[in-house]
Formats: sequence, structure tokens, C-alpha cells
Amino acid sequence: MKALETISWDEETSSILLIDQTKLPLSYRIIRCRNVDRLITAIRRLEVRGAPALGIAGAYGVALAAITTRERDFPRYFHLVESAALDIGKARPTAVNLSWGVFRVLAKIRLARSIEEVRIVAVKEARKVADEDAAACHVLGDYGATLLPGTGTVLTHCNAGALACREWGTALGVVRSAVESGKNISVIACETRPLLQGARLTAWELKRDAIPVTVIPDSAAAHLMRKGEIDCVLVGADRITRDAVFNKVGTYMHAICAKSHDIPFFVAAPVSTFDRVHSEEEIEIEERERDEVAQWSGHATVPDGVPVRNPAFDATPLSLVTALITEQGVIRPASGWVEIAGKHRVI
Amino acid sequence: MKALETISWDEETSSILLIDQTKLPLSYRIIRCRNVDRLITAIRRLEVRGAPALGIAGAYGVALAAITTRERDFPRYFHLVESAALDIGKARPTAVNLSWGVFRVLAKIRLARSIEEVRIVAVKEARKVADEDAAACHVLGDYGATLLPGTGTVLTHCNAGALACREWGTALGVVRSAVESGKNISVIACETRPLLQGARLTAWELKRDAIPVTVIPDSAAAHLMRKGEIDCVLVGADRITRDAVFNKVGTYMHAICAKSHDIPFFVAAPVSTFDRVHSEEEIEIEERERDEVAQWSGHATVPDGVPVRNPAFDATPLSLVTALITEQGVIRPASGWVEIAGKHRVI
Repeated sequence: MKALETISWDEETSSILLIDQTKLPLSYRIIRCRNVDRLITAIRRLEVRGAPALGIAGAYGVALAAITTRERDFPRYFHLVESAALDIGKARPTAVNLSWGVFRVLAKIRLARSIEEVRIVAVKEARKVADEDAAACHVLGDYGATLLPGTGTVLTHCNAGALACREWGTALGVVRSAVESGKNISVIACETRPLLQGARLTAWELKRDAIPVTVIPDSAAAHLMRKGEIDCVLVGADRITRDAVFNKVGTYMHAICAKSHDIPFFVAAPVSTFDRVHSEEEIEIEERERDEVAQWSGHATVPDGVPVRNPAFDATPLSLVTALITEQGVIRPASGWVEIAGKHRVI
Repeated sequence: MKALETISWDEETSSILLIDQTKLPLSYRIIRCRNVDRLITAIRRLEVRGAPALGIAGAYGVALAAITTRERDFPRYFHLVESAALDIGKARPTAVNLSWGVFRVLAKIRLARSIEEVRIVAVKEARKVADEDAAACHVLGDYGATLLPGTGTVLTHCNAGALACREWGTALGVVRSAVESGKNISVIACETRPLLQGARLTAWELKRDAIPVTVIPDSAAAHLMRKGEIDCVLVGADRITRDAVFNKVGTYMHAICAKSHDIPFFVAAPVSTFDRVHSEEEIEIEERERDEVAQWSGHATVPDGVPVRNPAFDATPLSLVTALITEQGVIRPASGWVEIAGKHRVI
């Protein structure tokens, strides 16, 4: 399977290249971000989305800020870069990876002593973030593949695939690794309202790799579980606190329904997704705009004046998670929380 | 509140009038069915939908067949009417009310001895079906209203409102009765993919009656339950066997999630919805066409060639139902199945 590069750094023009995820599957279009404002717009519009890809976007964003900031006085230059970086980090509140990517490059450039050095170090570190993400996806994919049946059907929600990372994917990375290892896996992709990342993106990238995929409305998942058609649920994550997994809204209901049918519920995410500081109740769930739910191609689907709630994420308590699949190994939360990012202890 | 008449018989032209439910909320349009073929088309296209409204459509459909069949030989005439009636009854497989409405009028006209008498009896009996449905909704609304809190938020799925009946509604009839009795009820309407009956129809008719309503993606229901924002779930039904409630796909996941949060799960339906013959596994779940999920205004939302599953209904075991609200009283399945339609025993 040829790797898809969702986000990359264009050396020649010092800009970020993104696959426009709002246009798929109708058209495949590359967006070039030449400045931080365009990147922030891309993040807010979800032209780039998915927790690991947002981490890379944050990292490349700091590089972009370093390159495009025109100030000559070093302290003032550094302050401007830092301020632009923090703006990028705040573009979306729930996914931890975005600010993680920003802070990782910020921490590195703090040691630089000249504008030129900041620019070189920022681009180098951001590239490293992207490379490490790709490597992590392949490793966690291999760990996760061992948890899937030899032949079976995996239900997934939203897109935790190559399009949510630099390549390969987290949840879909596990599927890809399982298929590469000879397993016979088919995928049920929940369409994922309101923005249909499952119908549009997961279906598109799995079809591209010739992995069997069927799309269903989100609300049909429990019905298929009851019919015995789902062997496990496998999703990504936008943030994992010590008590909950934050992921696309709908993940929580799949977890409850999986538990109710004794179906394993797996979460695949790199350790950059872990938030060891906060607990569930401290995390803000992004509420997005009304029209994502209430309109389609400019047509109202909700009567004028009727309010809409559009939370982008929900929280699934770790007690519902059979296993967390990371590049450092597999964690089974039912056996108690394990500090993996700090101490590299994996059970 | 002025009653909305979803389906009615136009005496002057001997035709059926329907509010076109595929066009709301963008436009309010009345469809006139002058023959059985147009009615079957309306049923298949969901221009008329909702279990009780389908019962009325079935009944009026037999009247329409009786009026429009041109044969003069009485036995042959009767055979043609019966055959048209059976075609109507088969237009959709899962809702029991459609064939119930057909059979109720068929049973009545069997006693007629002339073409003229068949026509008079069919129209009269179909009108009675419609009148009884309206009366049943008001009575079950009053029963159900006592189960709702003085102030609270009800989550509903799909449209079990006036637009699913002749008027008033089943689940939304309960809400209307509660509001009329002075209770302070607001409604969370799940948008209900793929055809958005919640976003389009439930929101439209509640807004019309000035009952507070907010629309959410189906997948956000469990999140709001976890946040403590839902006091009960209240839905309609398309068929109630002795072991399960068949209703719009998504009902089952709401029932599982309600149970998991100790939130009451109520089903409101007239006794014509009860099927005392079959059990869950014997009922065919209608699978509808791919494009309902895969297209929007002609634009593909699922890549070409990727299959879609589109079950219209799911089955919720009675063990997850806190109470069934009927016009004959309230049944609590947890205390054991009670034969209400036959023996009028209600607990």
C-alpha cells in the first residue's frame, strides 16, 4: 500500500501542504499554507483534522511562524513567534495533540540564539514530530493487529486513519497492519455526523487501499452489534486523561453499546494523546457552529430559529475501554491506570 | 394549540390529502392521492410516514381502491379491491399499522353486498380509523403526561408527533398533554439520520406549538445523558411484539444508553401497534436504498462503489423499556408482558 501524506512541509517554498479534508471524496485538493493565519483557518475549518495530524500541524505551524516573522530584533522576534505559536495552539480546544505539537517545537527553539537558528531548529523539530508520528502509527498498528481476530469485522467511528495522521493511521493503522499480516478484516465505518468524516474520509482511504468497508448511519451501530455482525470497536482519540478518552462525539455511545453486547472496545492513539495533568471534568468539549448540523449545501435541515447543540467530542470513561493501543504497547485500563508516557511502563 | 391534520379524506373529490413530509421544513405542500398507485408511491417515498399515519393511510387506501375500481361485476370488483388493498399493505414491511389499517377496512367491507355499499362502508370505516387514532393519541398523551417530571427535558428520536398520526402524536402527544397540563417540558430532538425526521419534522411541529426544542446529532444523545441533561427518553413505535419494540433505527442505542444512565425509557404507541403473533426474530427490518445515506442534494457523501447499510428500524428488547404508554393505560414490561389488546387488562 502506498502511503498517503496528509500533511507535509514544502522545503522549496517554506510552506505547509495539506490534503483538503473538507472536499473529499468529491475532489482531491492540496492546500498550501504560506502563513500562520491560513493554517489557523485550515484547522478551524477542519481542512486538517485528526488528533495526530493536528499535532504535526501545530509543530509545522511554529516552523511557519519562525520563517514568516519578519522582525529583526531577536527578543522581539522570539516573542512574536511564541505569540503566533500560542494562537495556533488555541485554534481548537479539545485535542491535546495540537498544543503538544506547538509546545514541543517551542521548547526546542528556546535554546536557539539567533533568528536563523530558530528557523532551522523549528523546521527540523517539526519534521521530527511528523516522522515520529508516522513511526508511532506503524508500531502501534503492529501492536494492535495482534488484538484483532483472524477474520472479522471492525466498527470504527469518524476517521482515525492516514488522513488523521501523517500516514498509516491509528485505528485504521491497526486495521492496515492486521491486513498486512494476513488477517481478513472488513470495516464498518459510521458516517459520523455532522461532518461525515467516516463516510467521506474513512471510506475513501480504505477503498484506496482495497480494504473492504461499508458505511452505516451512526445510529445503526447498536443494531449491527445485536445482530452479531461486529467483532470489535476500534477508534482513535483526541485526548486521553487518566479517567476518560475524548474522541469524536458518538464514541461514548458505541462504547456503552459494545459493553452491553460484550464486544471489545479498543482505542488506538500515540502517547502524544495522553494528558496526565487533567481529569475528564476539567476538559472543555468544543461546541461547533449550528450550521454544521442545521444546513446542507445551503439548505436548512432544521427549521429557522430552532437551536442546535453541536458538541464535537464526548468522553468515554476508561472503565468502558478494553485496551488502549499505543506505540509503547497495549494498556488494559480495567487492570488500573498505567503511567506510560513518563515511566515507559507497559503491561 | 390548533391541531395539524397530517392525513385526511377529501369527500368532494374522493381522494386522500397528505402533508408532504419530505419537503418540510423548507416548504409546506399538500399531496392529493387520487389513486392507489400514487398512495403506494407516497408511502414508499415517505411522503407519509409514522406508524399511526400509515395505519390511516392503509385504511383510506382501501377506501380509495373501493372508489376507483371501475369493474361492474361484484365478485370481480371485490377481488380487484382486495388485491389493491394487499398491495398497499405490502408497501413497507416493518410497521404493523399499515397492514392493520388495510385489514381493518377489508374485514368491514367483506360484509357488504354491493359495489355501492363497499364504497360507503370503506370510507366510513377508514374515517373511523382516523378518528380513533386521534382520540387514542389524546388519551395516551394524558396517560403519559403523568409520567413526565414537572420540569424536565425529554429526548426523542425520529418523529412520533402529529405528523406521524392524524394529529397530536404519540411520543409528542405525551409532551403536548404534559405541556397542556402545565408541565414545563423541553425536548431534545435527535436529528435522525438518514432522512432527518427529527431535525425536519419534530423540530417543525414543536416550534409551531411553541414547545422548546433543540436539535442534536443522534450520536450526541449519550453525551447529554452523561452530562445529566436528559430526564427521560420518549419515542414512538412501528411494531411491538411480545419481546421487542421496533422503531426507527437508533432507538435501540438510546435505550441501552438510557439504561446505562438510569434514565427512564418510555415508548408511546396506540394498541394498533401491538403484534401479538410474532417475536423479534420473525420480523423483517426494512433495508432502504443506498442513496438515502450516500447522497445529499445529488452530491455523493460516500465514495462511489463503497457499499452502505441502511436499516430503517431496529429492535429494542422490552427489558430495556421502562413503560409502554397506550390509550388503554401504561404497561411496565419489567413486571411481565400483559395482554392488553385482547383482554383489556392493563396494569
